Amino acid sequence: MRLEPGHGSERNFKLKLEYDGTGLAGWQRQPDRPTVQGHLEDVFFKLTGQKVSVIGAGRTDAGVHALGQAAHFKAKTRLTPAELLRGANALLIRRIAVLSLEEAPLDFHARYHARSKVYDYDLYLAPVRSAMKRRFSWHIPSELDLKAMARALKFLEGEHDFASFQSTGSSVESTVRCLFEVNLAAGPDGLVRITLEGNGFLRHMVRAIVGTLVEVGRSRITPEEFQRILEARDRSLAGITAPAHGLCLREVKY
Amino acid sequence: MRLEPGHGSERNFKLKLEYDGTGLAGWQRQPDRPTVQGHLEDVFFKLTGQKVSVIGAGRTDAGVHALGQAAHFKAKTRLTPAELLRGANALLIRRIAVLSLEEAPLDFHARYHARSKVYDYDLYLAPVRSAMKRRFSWHIPSELDLKAMARALKFLEGEHDFASFQSTGSSVESTVRCLFEVNLAAGPDGLVRITLEGNGFLRHMVRAIVGTLVEVGRSRITPEEFQRILEARDRSLAGITAPAHGLCLREVKY
Repeated sequence: MRLEPGHGSERNFKLKLEYDGTGLAGWQRQPDRPTVQGHLEDVFFKLTGQKVSVIGAGRTDAGVHALGQAAHFKAKTRLTPAELLRGANALLIRRIAVLSLEEAPLDFHARYHARSKVYDYDLYLAPVRSAMKRRFSWHIPSELDLKAMARALKFLEGEHDFASFQSTGSSVESTVRCLFEVNLAAGPDGLVRITLEGNGFLRHMVRAIVGTLVEVGRSRITPEEFQRILEARDRSLAGITAPAHGLCLREVKY
Repeated sequence: MRLEPGHGSERNFKLKLEYDGTGLAGWQRQPDRPTVQGHLEDVFFKLTGQKVSVIGAGRTDAGVHALGQAAHFKAKTRLTPAELLRGANALLIRRIAVLSLEEAPLDFHARYHARSKVYDYDLYLAPVRSAMKRRFSWHIPSELDLKAMARALKFLEGEHDFASFQSTGSSVESTVRCLFEVNLAAGPDGLVRITLEGNGFLRHMVRAIVGTLVEVGRSRITPEEFQRILEARDRSLAGITAPAHGLCLREVKY
């Protein structure tokens, strides 16, 4: 594939991305650290000869995985989407894959136009740790009251001010977000999946929710106290932030 | 937990093991290379103060995974099985886990007493590679004729001389083995699982079978030709050896 500097008019490309976040310093480009955005921008520079900005739908933290992150970038190139897809997957490190790449209208924006994002958080409930699940779930060796957790989780559905569940020190204009769907499902092999679909997420929001839900599961907080933590809009009341490696951005909907 | 050199009489312990074979040089101890047996023997030496030999039910190759490898070792120790289990999981590298550890009769032997072993081999059929599945499946970007593969696979059921499916240069007394059950199942997300349960497996047997089955899937070999390859007892006729990272020893039955 030839290096093809700035040919023709500007085009916009929409990407669907999968990554194993283990060992990556998260989405956002940082000097001298391996990030998803950094790897993608380097690869599309090689393919198009242009410095591109790859804009992700969500800026996942270090160690967080994705099965369906979305992104876009603009470039002048005569490469077809299929050629860019093949080229990117040939050049990218193995833990990042471009699942699809298509041309989009010039005004398409991966972040602003996202209607909702779906996050899964996997807990692994078992007395003994797992070798195979260690990179993709949070191991909890004690038993949890899953019914109480599911009941607490339901309080989050709908529009709320989620200030209690953002990382301390964040400053965003509004901390009101809407969760369209919340779910807790116990699968086989001890895996418990907490799913949140919403129109937006504050920094560390899913992980703070999961960390606090686990406190409910351990009967240290009742579901009603969980609801009061939500209503208090005070981060100091909630539980710990669950580790990053249990979290996966499963889908971005437009 | 105290180091407890050779107390009391000899006891025999049976283990169930899980490991992510990525980056491991297989089961069998080798100087200066990370192996499952080597890690286990080092850890049980630390815990019991004794040089123990950990005998596995199967000697998995470099890169092969296990969800239910079995093993045994003998040691003089006053540690309880629960203490040995906790101690081992605390000291072992994260990609190896001891799922259970129990005392067994002194004559129990993990290899000789195994009635059957169950191996899964996962193919990932998709035009684009996957970041999350890359360590645990063999990515095949072309389409495969799964019906032809399933039909060929059925010829392996029962007792056969599997000389065509052992690695070249192997020398074992007999190459006759019995496969109690064979199965091919297409799951969601493009995963296709080939399962073989048998009373014993030759070196590289599962991977040579899978490599040849994929040739059937690509219509380069018919199911009937596959059967003739089996009957010919000649390794040079079979297909390539499938890569190690798609293979997992799921269970050992006693």
